[in-house]
Amino acid sequence: QAARGWSSLEAIELLDRSHPVSPGVINRRYPRSDSVPKALARWMQRLLGSEGEEDFESVSLISSPVRTSSAQNNRRFLSFGMERRRRNNHLEDDDDDSRANANNDEVVFADPSTASRARLGNQRGGGGEEEELQLDPLPPMFSKYGDFHTIDWQRDLARDRLRHKVIGARSRDFPLGLIKAAWDAGAGWICVLLVGIAAGATAGVIDVAARWMSDLKDGVCADRFWLDREHCCWSSNDTIYKDSDCSAWTTWPEMFNYYSKSPFYYLVELFFYTAWAVGMSTLAVLLVKVFAPYACGSGIPEIKCILSGFIIRGYLGKWTFLIKSVGLILASASGLSLGKEGPMVHLGCCIGNIISYLFPKYGQNEAKKREILSASAAAGVSVAFGAPIGGVMFSLEEASYYFPQKTMWRSFFCALVAGIVLRLVNPFGSDQTSLFHVDYMVKWSFIELIPFGLLGIFGGLVGGLFTYLNIRWCRVRKENKLVGGNPIYEVVLVTLFTAAISYFNPYLHKSGTAVIKQLFDRCGPEDYMVELCEYRNVDGDVYFGSAFASVFWQLSVALVMKFVFTVFTFGIKIPCGLFVPSLVMGSLAGRLLAMLIEGFLRAVQDEAGTSMFSCQIGKDCMMPGLYAMVGAAAVLGGMTRMTVSLVVIMFELTGSLEFIVPTMVAVMFAKWVGDATHKQGMYEAHIELNGYPFLDNKGEYPYSTTAYQVMRPSASEGKELAVIVQDAMTLGEIEQLMRDTQFNGFPVVVSRESMYLVGYVTRRELQLALHAARQSQPYVVTASLVFFTAPGQASLHQPHADTSSSAPAPLRLRRIIDLAPMTVTDQMPMETIIDMFRKLGLRQLLVTRSGKVLGIITKKDILHFMRNAGDLESITNPNFK
Amino acid sequence: QAARGWSSLEAIELLDRSHPVSPGVINRRYPRSDSVPKALARWMQRLLGSEGEEDFESVSLISSPVRTSSAQNNRRFLSFGMERRRRNNHLEDDDDDSRANANNDEVVFADPSTASRARLGNQRGGGGEEEELQLDPLPPMFSKYGDFHTIDWQRDLARDRLRHKVIGARSRDFPLGLIKAAWDAGAGWICVLLVGIAAGATAGVIDVAARWMSDLKDGVCADRFWLDREHCCWSSNDTIYKDSDCSAWTTWPEMFNYYSKSPFYYLVELFFYTAWAVGMSTLAVLLVKVFAPYACGSGIPEIKCILSGFIIRGYLGKWTFLIKSVGLILASASGLSLGKEGPMVHLGCCIGNIISYLFPKYGQNEAKKREILSASAAAGVSVAFGAPIGGVMFSLEEASYYFPQKTMWRSFFCALVAGIVLRLVNPFGSDQTSLFHVDYMVKWSFIELIPFGLLGIFGGLVGGLFTYLNIRWCRVRKENKLVGGNPIYEVVLVTLFTAAISYFNPYLHKSGTAVIKQLFDRCGPEDYMVELCEYRNVDGDVYFGSAFASVFWQLSVALVMKFVFTVFTFGIKIPCGLFVPSLVMGSLAGRLLAMLIEGFLRAVQDEAGTSMFSCQIGKDCMMPGLYAMVGAAAVLGGMTRMTVSLVVIMFELTGSLEFIVPTMVAVMFAKWVGDATHKQGMYEAHIELNGYPFLDNKGEYPYSTTAYQVMRPSASEGKELAVIVQDAMTLGEIEQLMRDTQFNGFPVVVSRESMYLVGYVTRRELQLALHAARQSQPYVVTASLVFFTAPGQASLHQPHADTSSSAPAPLRLRRIIDLAPMTVTDQMPMETIIDMFRKLGLRQLLVTRSGKVLGIITKKDILHFMRNAGDLESITNPNFK
Repeated sequence: QAARGWSSLEAIELLDRSHPVSPGVINRRYPRSDSVPKALARWMQRLLGSEGEEDFESVSLISSPVRTSSAQNNRRFLSFGMERRRRNNHLEDDDDDSRANANNDEVVFADPSTASRARLGNQRGGGGEEEELQLDPLPPMFSKYGDFHTIDWQRDLARDRLRHKVIGARSRDFPLGLIKAAWDAGAGWICVLLVGIAAGATAGVIDVAARWMSDLKDGVCADRFWLDREHCCWSSNDTIYKDSDCSAWTTWPEMFNYYSKSPFYYLVELFFYTAWAVGMSTLAVLLVKVFAPYACGSGIPEIKCILSGFIIRGYLGKWTFLIKSVGLILASASGLSLGKEGPMVHLGCCIGNIISYLFPKYGQNEAKKREILSASAAAGVSVAFGAPIGGVMFSLEEASYYFPQKTMWRSFFCALVAGIVLRLVNPFGSDQTSLFHVDYMVKWSFIELIPFGLLGIFGGLVGGLFTYLNIRWCRVRKENKLVGGNPIYEVVLVTLFTAAISYFNPYLHKSGTAVIKQLFDRCGPEDYMVELCEYRNVDGDVYFGSAFASVFWQLSVALVMKFVFTVFTFGIKIPCGLFVPSLVMGSLAGRLLAMLIEGFLRAVQDEAGTSMFSCQIGKDCMMPGLYAMVGAAAVLGGMTRMTVSLVVIMFELTGSLEFIVPTMVAVMFAKWVGDATHKQGMYEAHIELNGYPFLDNKGEYPYSTTAYQVMRPSASEGKELAVIVQDAMTLGEIEQLMRDTQFNGFPVVVSRESMYLVGYVTRRELQLALHAARQSQPYVVTASLVFFTAPGQASLHQPHADTSSSAPAPLRLRRIIDLAPMTVTDQMPMETIIDMFRKLGLRQLLVTRSGKVLGIITKKDILHFMRNAGDLESITNPNFK
Repeated sequence: QAARGWSSLEAIELLDRSHPVSPGVINRRYPRSDSVPKALARWMQRLLGSEGEEDFESVSLISSPVRTSSAQNNRRFLSFGMERRRRNNHLEDDDDDSRANANNDEVVFADPSTASRARLGNQRGGGGEEEELQLDPLPPMFSKYGDFHTIDWQRDLARDRLRHKVIGARSRDFPLGLIKAAWDAGAGWICVLLVGIAAGATAGVIDVAARWMSDLKDGVCADRFWLDREHCCWSSNDTIYKDSDCSAWTTWPEMFNYYSKSPFYYLVELFFYTAWAVGMSTLAVLLVKVFAPYACGSGIPEIKCILSGFIIRGYLGKWTFLIKSVGLILASASGLSLGKEGPMVHLGCCIGNIISYLFPKYGQNEAKKREILSASAAAGVSVAFGAPIGGVMFSLEEASYYFPQKTMWRSFFCALVAGIVLRLVNPFGSDQTSLFHVDYMVKWSFIELIPFGLLGIFGGLVGGLFTYLNIRWCRVRKENKLVGGNPIYEVVLVTLFTAAISYFNPYLHKSGTAVIKQLFDRCGPEDYMVELCEYRNVDGDVYFGSAFASVFWQLSVALVMKFVFTVFTFGIKIPCGLFVPSLVMGSLAGRLLAMLIEGFLRAVQDEAGTSMFSCQIGKDCMMPGLYAMVGAAAVLGGMTRMTVSLVVIMFELTGSLEFIVPTMVAVMFAKWVGDATHKQGMYEAHIELNGYPFLDNKGEYPYSTTAYQVMRPSASEGKELAVIVQDAMTLGEIEQLMRDTQFNGFPVVVSRESMYLVGYVTRRELQLALHAARQSQPYVVTASLVFFTAPGQASLHQPHADTSSSAPAPLRLRRIIDLAPMTVTDQMPMETIIDMFRKLGLRQLLVTRSGKVLGIITKKDILHFMRNAGDLESITNPNFK
């Protein structure tokens, strides 16, 4: 009895053994080192040659004779939005296939007698060998799943448990086995440790490089060009002013010995500023386009999908990692309205993916690998913000799908290691434990919750509006050839405008992080020189004078322009995150609100005397910095709809527990108002835009449909389900069935009349098994019967026992079928089915009624159903299988 | 087609409507206000009357003539460990039942012809009315589930979705409906807001009262007796010394005008100290025993079970709440080695439960109620430690089972509100934002991670040893009549010993929180008077002299005694938590280690000169307070095996981000060593000890069994599954089946020969439906056929169509069957099944093979299997159904 329980697990093991996976071949579809010169050549060709009206895809199709499959090519440029035509073709193909399936089923199986089978067998008997080649056009199996497939969590975890059992059993036998078991137990920790170290180091390098390159737009350090402005001044032993220059730092006009601050001086400065910006962003987009198209964007939507069990081959590869790192430095230095934080999460996951291949336990098991990836995502946030707990919460709330306790603890470890390493690597960083350390002297009062709530509402509105506009623009980019077909021009244009306008506004000119730091800061007595604080230190009537007006004006312009820039920036083909621009917008808005309130208070005090409020404006009445902080949280909340993780990140960013409540109130309002304004956050909206198969882990779906109405083939279609009969089909028939259909698996039934379920067999395993049989067993011919029954059982049940003497030897494939497929009855409500898909990580469900198989529900069907039922647009990625 | 999908949902609604649940009757099994005088009388009787050898249960059985059911009584005293005998009976009953089921099945259904059915019908035709009364001995349905049942999450959530749909549909019709919809949407937030406010207020009151009563052991405030020592001294305007007395504070000897500090003075003080302690703890145990037996212990193991879907009626009731609050004040004031934190979580959940009845959405739906309870648990931790984020993490990691994103966000809100209210209510609390605020001047160095790791190992060992000893002692208490039968004497004895010994040691004498605060503190220059810091401020040779030795000796004694006390204290019948004792032990150990290292460093420096380490011991070399903090985290980690939540709590307790890494290293080692020493943490061990049906959400179970081997009836038993045939059973037969079996539900099949599954019907719904039919439909008699088929279908499929004219009118019960029961095939591996039970919150699964129902797997079977397979002892709570 116990032996039976093992059968399906053994089958998996058998499969694994017969097709060992070597770590090296995983990224083989991706440009390897030898292809880089070719890519460079192609790039040069492209730069020199005429481009004109040609769209991206056709260019790359023409100029890449090295590639054999256009599908591969298409996949590489998928994210360039040029896949529409192929998509439609795919969809049509799909429909045709299923129709063909139904028809063929009827033809082939209408008369399931031996005669017809024999006839089919004879017809194809001669061409067996050729057919075999045709039958298995698969590349050597380098993973269990194909590109754009979803993984089967249960199966992968079962595989891991089996592996674990084998190791456990061996650990008793040998002293060596014990070491192996210990290694296996510690592998997860070592892996996340390495990930943490690598993520911290990467982030450190990127930080330092980006800061240097960012300052390069303004000037260089005269004697030591490799220093950025801050360290240039430090090393030259000048007195340090906040936000001011030192003699060692040389601006570009000064490099040309032009020192007088005439308009021409500024013109030269503007020219260099813009030129550097355009140069850097152009280099970034070229790198992305030529070497790693997946390196563009924030990456968080894709990470969410990957963590939910989707496979995007190459998305976390080493090329993406390299190019995204370099591109991120260039992009963030170019002064575009983008942040490093989202891409940092992507980079973290790349590191996790690359390092997991050192540990076969994780590298060869997609479900287990996602544990490492979850930890890596946490490390990414940790290094992006210096917030280890926030990183774990982000991974838990936003990114991850399967997040057992063990993973949480490892994620925490990983995030912490990454944070420590970052601090060690980055010797120029501040000494503070938190990125935007605040030390407000004043406490907030309960009445201030009203403006904080208003900031939350503002954040929700901005988030909703931004999402709407950005998605609209992205759709234009997808659909309009002129906009979508010229990503390089687009980047150049956006950079040009951003740089030319940003140059004139101090809050746009500086890097996002510096602006946030400045806006969060309280104005101490030593800050009287700083414009932002100046108006607060002026007594009396001058208050509403020039300083106030000029600051207010600058902040307002910065806010509006930041919004506009970001709408057009998020989605261009360079690495770009959304966190810092959101924070900047929010802190600008918060600071503006604080100024308004201060003005109002001042007016009231002027009217009613100072006794009206027992506080001195500009000193202890309120903290504009706190408003900036709350506003930042609100806008980020409105954009991403993060909640707990956002509050924790803000709290770690500022290092202050006292201001959790204001942050939380703002985030809460932002979430509510945001949800009311635009149903989805940025990430969900982009997931839907790209048609990724993401089953949202959060929502509750109030549908009232049953499995019967969703399953395929649906009752109304009149098609028949493609099934395999356990003991009455020949090899030829099965091969024909596989040729005729595109389904990823087939239910195995007792007989076509009864349709009682025996098990489920995946297309890939069937293909491999048939291929192996054809190769190794010479007696297997097209007319051979294929038995999926247990050995003892077969001869009793099969109705053709009398013909067995004359027929060719049968092929027994009991081992490859999954005897325990998930089934539901046809009356099962869809809510429960969605729950099962989400929580158990299924790929497909078989629908039965009174024991008979009626149909099948795949993840694709679920998504299709959810999008249609939820009145969302049903853009589905056709590559998703 | 769409209509079919609704059928099972409609059935639920129908049921709800016909048996409305009024909030008031929920706690009806529990002592209500009118029963309190009786209880008091009984208590007096008990105190005056002879007790002798009688055990607890028999006493309460004798002295409670008001009770009608001994089962009720038994339940009330379940936690007093006296249920062994009944347990065994239960188990035997259970076995008998199932055996009877099998036999009866065979007898009744061996000949499923009309004749035998008619005979049965006639035999019982006359006694129909009596039988009916006998058939339905259920109390009026006040909830869908009985006591000690587990809930069916999917069903409850479906019920809620239906409710939601109804409200959604109505919101379009009326303007009133819109308000209702808005109310419904906001109800969750209002509910957690109220819970937060109530939890904060409760915690504040308990804190203030406990502090006052705790100081009462030493003396009273002369002029204002309602003040505790600290505020007494404040109000009298004395100079405040740290840890010293003021003139207004009068010790007990002083109250009797005895001022000279002679031995007699201390004897009087000791007497009062001990007498107060014993008095308070005795009062606590009496209150618990008489009014609310569930109020004892920490409550966290039970909360974990309840949140996982177990029903323990009255465990979160208002009596438990009241008595636990009062008992907690008394217990923590008595100086016993216990903490308020665990019980605070229990109190939070009580509040959540009580308040949820104001909102029918939550009060009437056990699955939804658990969302509120999760938030309440977070609020409980939040007020216990002043750690809102830690509370959410605790609820997520430790307590909760079903924790969707929405719940997390609400939990956060709830925890935060509770924290704010606590700070508002408790005007005596410190101004610091964190409970044990630390402001160490020195940074830790990487080399110190070694001692931190050692502390972690120590914590793991202590945790493992403690769990082992405590569980052993609890088992002795359960099994030994002398120990277990006299909880009051036990409490008195434990208190007597604790108080008598604690009096002499300053670190045991003080309250746990005060000790932790002192040990965490750094020794500033102003602390030269404090013994703990004295040795550090003495220069030169005196260092290893008397001050060092005396402090070391005191700390060591305190550590050992604390351990011994706590082993015997945790489990006595008063409210007692484990957090603070663990923290105290840990901080004592940490401080001891720091002293040893300081001594070692001093010795090395004496040898090699001060240049050896460039730091001055006692000043900037290391922080003993940090060691105490890390040690505290380590021991608590070893005890509870918490990880992320513990680090976050420690971080919020101390308000310092810098020390996350040391804490984390210690907690990590504590977890590893603890897991190696004793497999389970305290909570899991107590869950197992009490035999609660807790399906651990964390572990991964490396079994390789299939459903076939676990299902009941198992193949080896040779019994037959108790099923209901959809169209061939009479009312009498079904009633007989229900009398004969104790199962909670029955599969409905097409026919006994085919065993093809149609649906599943629960015992309770069947009972209610039959009862209702007998009451309302006069034509329904015992011989009536019961049809579970659809109306149109029935006459075609049933084999007795010819007899329908003469037979009595059939009863149609299609509506009550669940047409979509969860099914698995018999080859499904148990890992997957456990996963399904955990993640989907199932109550039972039907096992099929080729469409035929073979057996059933319930949660009980899963637990039984897991405990046997995992080599754990299989003590199972027989009350669990």
